[in-house]
Amino acid sequence: MDIDLPEVVAEVEAAFARYEQALVTNDTETLGALFHVDPRTIRYGIGENLYGHAEIQAYRKARPAVDLMRRLEGTVITAYGRDMAVASTLFYRASAAGKVGRQMQTWVRFDHGWRIVAASVSVIDA
Amino acid sequence: MDIDLPEVVAEVEAAFARYEQALVTNDTETLGALFHVDPRTIRYGIGENLYGHAEIQAYRKARPAVDLMRRLEGTVITAYGRDMAVASTLFYRASAAGKVGRQMQTWVRFDHGWRIVAASVSVIDA
Repeated sequence: MDIDLPEVVAEVEAAFARYEQALVTNDTETLGALFHVDPRTIRYGIGENLYGHAEIQAYRKARPAVDLMRRLEGTVITAYGRDMAVASTLFYRASAAGKVGRQMQTWVRFDHGWRIVAASVSVIDA
Repeated sequence: MDIDLPEVVAEVEAAFARYEQALVTNDTETLGALFHVDPRTIRYGIGENLYGHAEIQAYRKARPAVDLMRRLEGTVITAYGRDMAVASTLFYRASAAGKVGRQMQTWVRFDHGWRIVAASVSVIDA
Protein backbone atom coordinates (compact mmCIF):
# COMPACT_ATOMS: atom_id res chain seq x y z
CA MET A 1 0.00 0.00 0.00
CA ASP A 2 1.72 3.17 -1.24
CA ILE A 3 0.67 6.22 0.72
CA ASP A 4 0.74 9.72 -0.75
CA LEU A 5 2.07 9.01 -4.22
CA PRO A 6 2.66 12.60 -5.38
CA GLU A 7 0.76 12.30 -8.67
CA VAL A 8 -2.25 10.80 -6.91
CA VAL A 9 -2.27 13.48 -4.21
CA ALA A 10 -2.05 16.15 -6.91
CA GLU A 11 -5.11 14.76 -8.66
CA VAL A 12 -7.17 14.67 -5.49
CA GLU A 13 -6.02 18.15 -4.49
CA ALA A 14 -7.32 19.41 -7.82
CA ALA A 15 -10.65 17.63 -7.32
CA PHE A 16 -10.89 18.93 -3.75
CA ALA A 17 -10.23 22.52 -4.92
CA ARG A 18 -12.88 22.16 -7.59
CA TYR A 19 -15.35 20.94 -4.98
CA GLU A 20 -14.58 23.84 -2.62
CA GLN A 21 -15.03 26.38 -5.40
CA ALA A 22 -18.37 24.78 -6.34
CA LEU A 23 -19.45 24.79 -2.70
CA VAL A 24 -18.84 28.47 -2.01
CA THR A 25 -20.46 29.49 -5.30
CA ASN A 26 -23.40 27.10 -4.83
CA ASP A 27 -22.64 25.38 -8.14
CA THR A 28 -24.95 22.47 -7.44
CA GLU A 29 -24.32 20.87 -10.83
CA THR A 30 -20.60 20.49 -10.14
CA LEU A 31 -21.25 19.41 -6.55
CA GLY A 32 -23.58 16.71 -7.81
CA ALA A 33 -21.10 15.63 -10.48
CA LEU A 34 -18.34 15.19 -7.89
CA PHE A 35 -20.40 12.80 -5.76
CA HIS A 36 -20.53 9.19 -6.98
CA VAL A 37 -23.94 8.56 -8.56
CA ASP A 38 -24.99 5.55 -6.52
CA PRO A 39 -27.54 4.74 -3.81
CA ARG A 40 -24.62 3.71 -1.57
CA THR A 41 -23.11 7.19 -1.56
CA ILE A 42 -23.68 8.75 1.86
CA ARG A 43 -23.42 12.30 3.14
CA TYR A 44 -23.91 13.15 6.81
CA GLY A 45 -24.40 16.91 6.73
CA ILE A 46 -24.50 19.64 9.37
CA GLY A 47 -28.14 18.95 10.12
CA GLU A 48 -29.20 16.04 7.89
CA ASN A 49 -28.36 12.43 7.08
CA LEU A 50 -28.51 11.73 3.36
CA TYR A 51 -28.41 8.21 1.92
CA GLY A 52 -27.82 7.94 -1.79
CA HIS A 53 -26.92 10.43 -4.50
CA ALA A 54 -30.56 11.34 -5.12
CA GLU A 55 -31.11 12.49 -1.53
CA ILE A 56 -27.83 14.40 -1.56
CA GLN A 57 -28.67 16.20 -4.77
CA ALA A 58 -32.22 17.03 -3.65
CA TYR A 59 -30.72 18.63 -0.53
CA ARG A 60 -28.26 20.66 -2.62
CA LYS A 61 -30.98 22.07 -4.79
CA ALA A 62 -33.15 23.07 -1.82
CA ARG A 63 -30.33 24.69 0.14
CA PRO A 64 -30.47 28.50 0.41
CA ALA A 65 -27.41 29.98 -1.32
CA VAL A 66 -26.44 32.26 1.56
CA ASP A 67 -23.44 32.42 3.89
CA LEU A 68 -21.40 29.93 1.89
CA MET A 69 -17.94 31.49 2.15
CA ARG A 70 -15.60 29.87 4.60
CA ARG A 71 -11.95 29.70 5.57
CA LEU A 72 -10.23 26.31 5.61
CA GLU A 73 -7.65 25.21 8.13
CA GLY A 74 -5.95 21.92 9.01
CA THR A 75 -6.61 20.50 5.55
CA VAL A 76 -5.04 17.07 5.04
CA ILE A 77 -5.35 15.01 1.86
CA THR A 78 -3.91 11.52 2.11
CA ALA A 79 -3.89 9.05 -0.78
CA TYR A 80 -3.89 5.30 -0.06
CA GLY A 81 -2.75 3.47 -3.17
CA ARG A 82 -3.72 4.90 -6.55
CA ASP A 83 -7.51 4.79 -6.33
CA MET A 84 -8.52 6.15 -2.92
CA ALA A 85 -7.93 9.20 -0.81
CA VAL A 86 -9.33 10.93 2.24
CA ALA A 87 -9.66 14.72 2.41
CA SER A 88 -10.19 16.22 5.85
CA THR A 89 -10.47 19.87 6.72
CA LEU A 90 -11.64 22.23 9.40
CA PHE A 91 -13.57 25.31 8.33
CA TYR A 92 -14.64 28.60 9.85
CA ARG A 93 -17.39 31.00 8.84
CA ALA A 94 -17.44 34.68 9.78
CA SER A 95 -21.11 34.28 10.75
CA ALA A 96 -20.36 31.48 13.21
CA ALA A 97 -17.94 32.89 15.77
CA GLY A 98 -16.72 30.34 18.31
CA LYS A 99 -17.58 27.41 16.06
CA VAL A 100 -15.42 25.10 13.99
CA GLY A 101 -16.68 22.98 11.11
CA ARG A 102 -15.23 19.62 10.17
CA GLN A 103 -15.53 18.09 6.72
CA MET A 104 -14.24 14.63 5.86
CA GLN A 105 -14.57 13.11 2.38
CA THR A 106 -13.57 9.74 0.96
CA TRP A 107 -12.63 9.98 -2.72
CA VAL A 108 -12.44 7.02 -5.10
CA ARG A 109 -10.98 6.97 -8.61
CA PHE A 110 -13.46 5.59 -11.14
CA ASP A 111 -12.92 5.25 -14.89
CA HIS A 112 -14.70 8.58 -15.31
CA GLY A 113 -12.68 10.37 -12.64
CA TRP A 114 -12.40 10.99 -8.91
CA ARG A 115 -15.67 10.99 -7.02
CA ILE A 116 -16.75 11.39 -3.38
CA VAL A 117 -18.35 8.19 -2.10
CA ALA A 118 -18.82 9.30 1.51
CA ALA A 119 -18.75 12.63 3.31
CA SER A 120 -19.37 13.85 6.82
CA VAL A 121 -19.82 17.49 7.80
CA SER A 122 -20.48 18.82 11.30
CA VAL A 123 -20.01 21.92 13.41
CA ILE A 124 -18.94 22.01 17.05
CA ASP A 125 -17.72 24.59 19.56
CA ALA A 126 -14.19 25.72 18.68
CA MET B 1 -13.54 -0.78 -9.62
CA ASP B 2 -15.46 -3.69 -8.09
CA ILE B 3 -17.92 -2.53 -5.47
CA ASP B 4 -19.06 -4.76 -2.61
CA LEU B 5 -17.14 -7.94 -3.37
CA PRO B 6 -18.80 -10.26 -0.82
CA GLU B 7 -15.57 -11.55 0.73
CA VAL B 8 -14.26 -8.01 1.18
CA VAL B 9 -17.50 -6.78 2.74
CA ALA B 10 -17.46 -9.76 5.11
CA GLU B 11 -13.96 -8.89 6.29
CA VAL B 12 -14.84 -5.27 6.95
CA GLU B 13 -18.09 -6.25 8.66
CA ALA B 14 -16.05 -8.39 11.05
CA ALA B 15 -13.60 -5.55 11.72
CA PHE B 16 -16.49 -3.12 12.22
CA ALA B 17 -18.17 -5.47 14.71
CA ARG B 18 -14.90 -5.84 16.59
CA TYR B 19 -14.57 -2.07 16.76
CA GLU B 20 -18.13 -1.61 18.04
CA GLN B 21 -17.62 -4.21 20.75
CA ALA B 22 -14.38 -2.51 21.82
CA LEU B 23 -16.10 0.86 21.86
CA VAL B 24 -18.99 -0.09 24.13
CA THR B 25 -16.66 -1.95 26.52
CA ASN B 26 -14.04 0.85 26.47
CA ASP B 27 -11.37 -1.59 25.27
CA THR B 28 -8.92 1.17 24.41
CA GLU B 29 -6.20 -1.27 23.39
CA THR B 30 -8.33 -2.78 20.64
CA LEU B 31 -9.63 0.64 19.60
CA GLY B 32 -6.06 1.85 19.26
CA ALA B 33 -5.05 -1.27 17.35
CA LEU B 34 -7.86 -0.77 14.82
CA PHE B 35 -6.75 2.76 13.93
CA HIS B 36 -3.82 2.99 11.50
CA VAL B 37 -0.70 3.98 13.45
CA ASP B 38 0.31 7.05 11.47
CA PRO B 39 0.37 10.83 11.99
CA ARG B 40 -1.94 11.14 8.96
CA THR B 41 -4.75 9.21 10.65
CA ILE B 42 -7.52 11.65 11.58
CA ARG B 43 -10.52 11.38 13.88
CA TYR B 44 -13.06 14.17 14.18
CA GLY B 45 -14.93 13.26 17.35
CA ILE B 46 -18.13 14.48 19.00
CA GLY B 47 -16.30 17.35 20.66
CA GLU B 48 -12.68 17.19 19.50
CA ASN B 49 -10.52 17.17 16.37
CA LEU B 50 -7.68 14.67 16.60
CA TYR B 51 -4.80 14.61 14.14
CA GLY B 52 -2.58 11.53 14.23
CA HIS B 53 -2.79 8.20 16.01
CA ALA B 54 -1.04 9.57 19.11
CA GLU B 55 -3.69 12.25 19.69
CA ILE B 56 -6.47 9.74 19.07
CA GLN B 57 -5.06 7.26 21.53
CA ALA B 58 -4.40 9.92 24.20
CA TYR B 59 -8.07 10.91 23.92
CA ARG B 60 -9.20 7.30 24.27
CA LYS B 61 -7.23 6.79 27.45
CA ALA B 62 -8.55 10.00 29.04
CA ARG B 63 -12.19 9.34 28.14
CA PRO B 64 -14.50 8.47 31.05
CA ALA B 65 -15.86 4.95 30.55
CA VAL B 66 -19.49 5.88 31.13
CA ASP B 67 -22.60 5.86 28.96
CA LEU B 68 -20.95 3.92 26.15
CA MET B 69 -23.81 1.63 25.10
CA ARG B 70 -25.62 2.61 21.97
CA ARG B 71 -28.04 1.29 19.38
CA LEU B 72 -27.00 1.34 15.72
CA GLU B 73 -29.30 2.09 12.82
CA GLY B 74 -28.81 2.76 9.11
CA THR B 75 -25.48 0.97 9.06
CA VAL B 76 -23.98 0.72 5.57
CA ILE B 77 -20.63 -0.88 4.78
CA THR B 78 -19.50 -0.45 1.18
CA ALA B 79 -16.26 -1.89 -0.19
CA TYR B 80 -14.54 -0.22 -3.15
CA GLY B 81 -12.11 -2.65 -4.72
CA ARG B 82 -10.30 -5.07 -2.42
CA ASP B 83 -8.43 -2.68 -0.15
CA MET B 84 -10.84 0.05 0.91
CA ALA B 85 -14.25 0.37 2.47
CA VAL B 86 -16.45 2.95 4.12
CA ALA B 87 -18.58 2.11 7.17
CA SER B 88 -21.33 4.57 8.02
CA THR B 89 -23.85 4.28 10.80
CA LEU B 90 -26.30 6.25 12.85
CA PHE B 91 -26.40 5.63 16.59
CA TYR B 92 -28.71 6.40 19.48
CA ARG B 93 -28.03 6.52 23.23
CA ALA B 94 -30.72 6.16 25.88
CA SER B 95 -29.20 9.13 27.70
CA ALA B 96 -29.53 11.40 24.66
CA ALA B 97 -33.19 11.51 23.76
CA GLY B 98 -33.98 13.47 20.61
CA LYS B 99 -30.42 13.17 19.32
CA VAL B 100 -28.89 11.05 16.57
CA GLY B 101 -25.21 10.25 16.28
CA ARG B 102 -23.42 9.73 12.99
CA GLN B 103 -20.20 7.75 12.64
CA MET B 104 -18.32 7.40 9.37
CA GLN B 105 -15.09 5.43 9.04
CA THR B 106 -12.76 4.81 6.12
CA TRP B 107 -11.06 1.41 6.35
CA VAL B 108 -7.93 0.40 4.42
CA ARG B 109 -6.45 -3.07 4.10
CA PHE B 110 -2.79 -3.13 5.06
CA ASP B 111 -0.49 -6.16 5.12
CA HIS B 112 -1.24 -6.46 8.84
CA GLY B 113 -5.01 -6.18 8.44
CA TRP B 114 -7.86 -3.72 8.08
CA ARG B 115 -7.35 -0.37 9.81
CA ILE B 116 -9.33 2.86 10.13
CA VAL B 117 -7.46 5.73 8.49
CA ALA B 118 -10.13 8.38 9.01
CA ALA B 119 -13.23 8.70 11.15
CA SER B 120 -15.82 11.34 11.85
CA VAL B 121 -18.32 11.22 14.70
CA SER B 122 -20.94 13.84 15.49
CA VAL B 123 -24.32 14.23 17.17
CA ILE B 124 -27.22 16.34 15.92
CA ASP B 125 -30.91 16.74 16.66
CA ALA B 126 -32.83 13.69 15.45
